[in-house]
Amino acid sequence: MINEEYKKMLGAKSVIRELSEYATKRGTEIGYDNVYDFSLGNPSVPCPDGYTEAVIDIHKNLNPMDIHGYSPSTTLPDVREAVANSLNRRFGMNYDMKHIFMTSGAAGALAHALRAVTKPGDKVLSFAPFFPEYRPYVSGCGDELVLVPADTANFQINLEAFEEMLDEKVMAVLINTPNNPSGVVYSEGTIKAMTDIMRRAQEKYGHDIFLISDEPYREIMFDGQTFTYPSKFYDNTLSCYSFSKSLSLPGERIGYVAVNPKATDADLLVPIMAQISRGIGHNCPSSSVQMAVARVLEDTSDLSVYETNMNLIYEELVNLGFNVVRPDGTFYIFPQALEEDAVAFCQKAKKYDLILVPSDSFGVKGYFRMAYCIDTDKVRRSLDALRRFVQTEYGI
Amino acid sequence: MINEEYKKMLGAKSVIRELSEYATKRGTEIGYDNVYDFSLGNPSVPCPDGYTEAVIDIHKNLNPMDIHGYSPSTTLPDVREAVANSLNRRFGMNYDMKHIFMTSGAAGALAHALRAVTKPGDKVLSFAPFFPEYRPYVSGCGDELVLVPADTANFQINLEAFEEMLDEKVMAVLINTPNNPSGVVYSEGTIKAMTDIMRRAQEKYGHDIFLISDEPYREIMFDGQTFTYPSKFYDNTLSCYSFSKSLSLPGERIGYVAVNPKATDADLLVPIMAQISRGIGHNCPSSSVQMAVARVLEDTSDLSVYETNMNLIYEELVNLGFNVVRPDGTFYIFPQALEEDAVAFCQKAKKYDLILVPSDSFGVKGYFRMAYCIDTDKVRRSLDALRRFVQTEYGI
Repeated sequence: MINEEYKKMLGAKSVIRELSEYATKRGTEIGYDNVYDFSLGNPSVPCPDGYTEAVIDIHKNLNPMDIHGYSPSTTLPDVREAVANSLNRRFGMNYDMKHIFMTSGAAGALAHALRAVTKPGDKVLSFAPFFPEYRPYVSGCGDELVLVPADTANFQINLEAFEEMLDEKVMAVLINTPNNPSGVVYSEGTIKAMTDIMRRAQEKYGHDIFLISDEPYREIMFDGQTFTYPSKFYDNTLSCYSFSKSLSLPGERIGYVAVNPKATDADLLVPIMAQISRGIGHNCPSSSVQMAVARVLEDTSDLSVYETNMNLIYEELVNLGFNVVRPDGTFYIFPQALEEDAVAFCQKAKKYDLILVPSDSFGVKGYFRMAYCIDTDKVRRSLDALRRFVQTEYGI
Repeated sequence: MINEEYKKMLGAKSVIRELSEYATKRGTEIGYDNVYDFSLGNPSVPCPDGYTEAVIDIHKNLNPMDIHGYSPSTTLPDVREAVANSLNRRFGMNYDMKHIFMTSGAAGALAHALRAVTKPGDKVLSFAPFFPEYRPYVSGCGDELVLVPADTANFQINLEAFEEMLDEKVMAVLINTPNNPSGVVYSEGTIKAMTDIMRRAQEKYGHDIFLISDEPYREIMFDGQTFTYPSKFYDNTLSCYSFSKSLSLPGERIGYVAVNPKATDADLLVPIMAQISRGIGHNCPSSSVQMAVARVLEDTSDLSVYETNMNLIYEELVNLGFNVVRPDGTFYIFPQALEEDAVAFCQKAKKYDLILVPSDSFGVKGYFRMAYCIDTDKVRRSLDALRRFVQTEYGI
């Protein structure tokens, strides 16, 4: 019989998806170029040529049997080794091949990581503002997602609330840095304070609490800042990565979980994830895509456009008097709306063909998200619409 | 905390995997050419050139943004349409794009199909002999797998036992035709009788019972036979397919679910599967692989080697007096062992460097599986080892 639970989910359309569909529809009326669509977090720059060349070279020159054969259940050894070496070089880690598990993007990585370190009924803590897809990811494991309220001053972590909410039932803490939707990167100070609290809680409750660090925007950092790698500061860390943003390959579904070598049962966690794969039908990402990304691990698309766009939008928002935290990375910005009801605010913006996402589904009220992974020319043109919007609607 | 349930699974290694590892190890001692390894069901012929050409052409000539962008959650529309058209042409069906959901191979297809039509605690019936991975697939949904005992006369379906076991808690029936491990294709008579029983049960219990038809070997048919497409005979059918065997692409993880247009809520089932995807982290197969297979949907690898190998092995087995059903397709054969204890039989075979898989994990006792997806030359040489084995050990 058809599963009624999933059937019910069909009614509840994602706010982002609905806005994006509205933008597309509006585009058919006035030309999509004239719709300032800040709804979707899709990379707007092509993958690097090196990736395309790698795919073509692999298919031209290797034996098809070697490209397209089954991966071992723990994924391709050479690829895992290349990822381990690259992470060690970049972040001063000590990964071995056996700590790396290739996955279908960050969604696949989180699906495995969450199941590996929780059992149904456990609590998973995350921090507002947060990526709304964490809800189905966590509920899909039978776990309960509990949100620590936002620290709206700077969108770092509300440490006091975190310590209070980290009760005995919490088995995993899920962070996203650089953060979607705020664009903020958790500072070394934040990571240190957060992991100190987690270590104390592990001691107090006598069980492991895992940190699951979702880092798909790690390569999009502004102002020459470097990324603080959370796993450096906490042994029980599973780092989840996707090449969707850094290589502009969201459709290829390729990423990984990296298990901190000092984690409890570190050497068992990848084989455990391979077991989990059997039950959820994941069974490795595409072998040729694994092989191709392994050749361009430290390459990226030209990501500079995101910083250019951020600066344009941030300056205009500040000029217009918005309360906004300057993003450290990603392609998102998360200003406070000009009225308490962010849904009403974003509804009014649509009159100016500005497609903004209200913050409610991100776990914060009164803010909105702009995904500025669009052409810089369109960003420039949108600023005029933004000015008209706030002047007309809010007299600013 | 680490999930102890999955940790326990690490101890229980798959029999097939263990035998394959033994074969590899033995290969390092005597040369793998001298190990008659019939353990693993991996295609032994390369993908067709058309697939390689499609991948290269796509990457050379299309805009990277069009190749590597996010698929819609219901997967790529053009690809779904091409699959629907191909199935309609080949099997006289009436699929529309909206009935096709692209997946990461048959494992991904089954993970979605099972979750869509059952809820945790439901029963799923399948038929011995069966593919042992059905156990984690079904238990991963929280369902109970119940096996109808084999009809060892011909490895069709034990209809009497099926009707008796089809109780009110059964919400799905899972079949595999052409069958792994028997190589048998369910006849039109079998499918008709089975689906008649299912229709009567639907009526009796007042709820839908879905047929999940797993068909990755559909293109490997012997003696010019044509495949009986189960969905033709039963409206509530989800057909699960993988290109792993037909195009020799197991590592690329590409397949689909095709929902019978007359199924209950047929138009909702693909959107439901897209929802399921979010919870299990599947989120579409690789976009470039979806696009490439769509260009070669009715092409196959040169599959004739499997029929050649089957004939060689079948004839020799018959000559040696084995009780064996002639396969209609696949690259498996499933003869009766020469003693009751199939494990002991296969253990003795190892002395002759014959790697055979005992039938116990396939849900039948006293048989063994040979996967003859290996070079024909090795098959020929293996026959001598087989003769020596049965003559020496069983005096035949």
